[in-house]
Amino acid sequence: MADWANLQLVDHHCHGLVQRDLDQGEFETLLTEASTLGVSAFDSRVGLAIRRWCAPVLDLPEHAPAADYVARRGELGFAEVDARFMAAAGLSGLCVDTGYVPEPISSPADLASLTGAAAHEIVRLEQVAEELYGQIDAIGFAHAFQSALEQRTEHAVGMKSIAAYRVGLDLDPARPSADSVADAVWRWFSGERRLADPVLQRFLIWCAVDRGLPIQFHVGLGDSDVDMKSGNPLLLMPLLRAIEPTGVPVMLLHNYPFHREAGYLAQVFSNVYVDVGLATHNLGDRSRVLIEETLELAPFGKFLFSSDAFGLAELYYLSAQLFRRGMASVLDAGVSEGSWSAADADRLALLAASGNATRVYRLG
Amino acid sequence: MADWANLQLVDHHCHGLVQRDLDQGEFETLLTEASTLGVSAFDSRVGLAIRRWCAPVLDLPEHAPAADYVARRGELGFAEVDARFMAAAGLSGLCVDTGYVPEPISSPADLASLTGAAAHEIVRLEQVAEELYGQIDAIGFAHAFQSALEQRTEHAVGMKSIAAYRVGLDLDPARPSADSVADAVWRWFSGERRLADPVLQRFLIWCAVDRGLPIQFHVGLGDSDVDMKSGNPLLLMPLLRAIEPTGVPVMLLHNYPFHREAGYLAQVFSNVYVDVGLATHNLGDRSRVLIEETLELAPFGKFLFSSDAFGLAELYYLSAQLFRRGMASVLDAGVSEGSWSAADADRLALLAASGNATRVYRLG
Amino acid sequence: MADWANLQLVDHHCHGLVQRDLDQGEFETLLTEASTLGVSAFDSRVGLAIRRWCAPVLDLPEHAPAADYVARRGELGFAEVDARFMAAAGLSGLCVDTGYVPEPISSPADLASLTGAAAHEIVRLEQVAEELYGQIDAIGFAHAFQSALEQRTEHAVGMKSIAAYRVGLDLDPARPSADSVADAVWRWFSGERRLADPVLQRFLIWCAVDRGLPIQFHVGLGDSDVDMKSGNPLLLMPLLRAIEPTGVPVMLLHNYPFHREAGYLAQVFSNVYVDVGLATHNLGDRSRVLIEETLELAPFGKFLFSSDAFGLAELYYLSAQLFRRGMASVLDAGVSEGSWSAADADRLALLAASGNATRVYRLG
Repeated sequence: MADWANLQLVDHHCHGLVQRDLDQGEFETLLTEASTLGVSAFDSRVGLAIRRWCAPVLDLPEHAPAADYVARRGELGFAEVDARFMAAAGLSGLCVDTGYVPEPISSPADLASLTGAAAHEIVRLEQVAEELYGQIDAIGFAHAFQSALEQRTEHAVGMKSIAAYRVGLDLDPARPSADSVADAVWRWFSGERRLADPVLQRFLIWCAVDRGLPIQFHVGLGDSDVDMKSGNPLLLMPLLRAIEPTGVPVMLLHNYPFHREAGYLAQVFSNVYVDVGLATHNLGDRSRVLIEETLELAPFGKFLFSSDAFGLAELYYLSAQLFRRGMASVLDAGVSEGSWSAADADRLALLAASGNATRVYRLG
Repeated sequence: MADWANLQLVDHHCHGLVQRDLDQGEFETLLTEASTLGVSAFDSRVGLAIRRWCAPVLDLPEHAPAADYVARRGELGFAEVDARFMAAAGLSGLCVDTGYVPEPISSPADLASLTGAAAHEIVRLEQVAEELYGQIDAIGFAHAFQSALEQRTEHAVGMKSIAAYRVGLDLDPARPSADSVADAVWRWFSGERRLADPVLQRFLIWCAVDRGLPIQFHVGLGDSDVDMKSGNPLLLMPLLRAIEPTGVPVMLLHNYPFHREAGYLAQVFSNVYVDVGLATHNLGDRSRVLIEETLELAPFGKFLFSSDAFGLAELYYLSAQLFRRGMASVLDAGVSEGSWSAADADRLALLAASGNATRVYRLG
Repeated sequence: MADWANLQLVDHHCHGLVQRDLDQGEFETLLTEASTLGVSAFDSRVGLAIRRWCAPVLDLPEHAPAADYVARRGELGFAEVDARFMAAAGLSGLCVDTGYVPEPISSPADLASLTGAAAHEIVRLEQVAEELYGQIDAIGFAHAFQSALEQRTEHAVGMKSIAAYRVGLDLDPARPSADSVADAVWRWFSGERRLADPVLQRFLIWCAVDRGLPIQFHVGLGDSDVDMKSGNPLLLMPLLRAIEPTGVPVMLLHNYPFHREAGYLAQVFSNVYVDVGLATHNLGDRSRVLIEETLELAPFGKFLFSSDAFGLAELYYLSAQLFRRGMASVLDAGVSEGSWSAADADRLALLAASGNATRVYRLG
């Protein structure tokens, strides 16, 4: 049986940490992607998991009250808090999405230093495109984007699309023509900087396919801005069919509550991989069931760990802890009831923990 | 640990009881919202739960045969049956939807008398509107409806929309213009009395928002007349985004099999609350899992109890019993595996049992 | 308690076996409906279940390595392998879909001989139609199809529609007019042989309703060619409403991950039946949960066993074994926690194992 407590993980989708101390309201806002109005985030699975798992790391008893937790956090200061949780997370690698920076956050190099693990970059397609907004004429955009993407991904290990947030996943699979791209850019440049155009979203994705690195897609669970029904991964099927012959890996992130659908896609498309990212810490101790449901159809060779942590170091630690425990629970139960051998369980655990990420992103 | 057996519940969505004795066919028809053709409703989870939980209340052994159960019910007479189950349900409050009366049923006052609990009224928007059908000219409808709603809800604690049954939940979030309302009323008055128009459904909902009381929405599970795919709560997202700034509470009822989606909405919208009404008794002893899945994302401060009982007093008792047991199972398991403290479990149980309903509907 | 190990099953939807020895790649291709690229199918639930359950039938230890399994299979030869698994499956009847024959496969008579059970035929509607492609003029198609269907189903027990694969399940419920059928045939005959036209698909289904035998629909889970989002059974609701008054049974096959939705349809439509077919072996030892979730709403009198086995005799054995174990687990747990009596469990097990199929298909 794997020594679960020491299983090192590659976190294949995560973000930087905020560089400041937080009051309880600010902490709760970062804890979920939800608004802070209404009731306390501490009275939900993720908040209860913080009190259980994270309090001891800050020298508090398990289940310490929320106010005590936030006070202790302030007492230690964010730098000490980050150092403790990032060291305790047990990561052997990180793939950091650098495309969302609403305030100064730690860089991949900072995260590498905090964890002692190699930190790689994931480049967000929309960010590269938006940097060209109004910097160029519409007809020159396509070439300029391809050049910029080439340059920005020179040392990156993957790219990410947030089409789910911008236009939904019901995308025409065809590579758009040069004319239609130029027209769409012209329309975009006449409006706001935020890119949300289905033709351009497809163009970005096909440029990413040409670039040949794994492409991450935000799927399912997000904040109240996402149109969740358009974030169903089954909507991606035509595009997945079109990408499959290129062999470029497609990484479906989060997926909840469509994780069974995502598991199906990981089974039937040779180049599709899945995780339960953001949902892992959101579901707290219940994330075990999510992992088990995803692995109903998803092959163990297609399932990865990610935290989708943003802002709070707790989310790195919590996701890592819950993923280890969830995998341990699923695999140990299988050994107990005879579904697989202990040797199989060890091997399958390593695939999900780090093997699949190392292979697909060609790390290390 | 909470004394589960004595946990008093507020049933925030329920209906009156039929005032007559029933043969087995009539009983089965009221047991589910299904047709009576095909196989026996007693050979499904809800029927098996009746035989297990309800038989002893009528002095029969657990698992008494269906025919014995119905015979015993007739022997005691409906008045005695109602008295026993309503007293045994352990309710401290009821919010009664008075808008569905296909035959004479008990009033909120009757239910208060049977349970010893305060019974409040929920006013169904479509019923208020349909009472104005053909009573007024199209141009005067908007004002007349607003006045009627004001009057009908003077002592009510909430309102209910059955848009899911009439036009589905994929509603344009905008408040319709006076002209478009008058046009739609004109079309409606030229046809049948049953209101099923997306413009008017939106108008009713916005009038309810203006009224400022919590608004219940039927979501998911219903009979074969509902278009279930249009009852997915994710379709409500644009409208929820539009209502959120008003602070008016939106109560998503039933939700199965979209209860995880509903839990997500309760997490990300500050004013959204959820229950698993109707499904609680339909799933029998399996409802525990439904509660657990809904509480994956839904904060405990956003989760309520309802029976959606209609016609049969058994459904009040069964839902209450199954909800108590389901919550006990979820919360006790959390204590056992260390997810939260026993004190937390007690507090969270009280929120779901009555605290949330009391706070949101401003009861007592 | 039922003697689960000896519970005989009627497999109400299955296919023939390939008549050749297989290398590991060919075996994996038949194991799932997935492409063979990417990772090994043996590192997923279905492959792990083969190593656990099937290895001992071929005299190997449980969890024998995949390569050993395939080698042993070759050593014994496909005829011996088929004989062992089909005898071990414990079937008392089979309903064989004869409409998918990509290579020579065993006939219903062959399967009867291997199992010692009666094998009945299910006629695939699209196959009967496609045999008329280009053989007749468009105006004569409707009558010719009706005659051909009458003849082909003379000794059949049911029919099958693969509308989900061809045009999706969002079908207009109305019987198409003679003119619209002739127009559609004309268009079809001007194109490729593969029938994929919504008008004709509806025509075929209504001819099947007229024929009066149970009609199976592929729903949910399939290979990467199926448009899964169009395979949601809730899309069938208008058609189910239209068929219900005829009393013709509608059998929803597979359903995963929409099995809860399918259970709802089995509850609210008197003539709708469900299984978890293909998903049973795909989910391996996890199929227990799938059975339990489907039976949340589906009455036990509406739930059937099928393997959807194609090509590999292992899939017959594995599905039968997993179905027995899953039902045993669900029913025994119910007895243990008092949800129903042991006598009820025995009776409900027999309904699902064979009683429902025998009654609905009017088998011997």
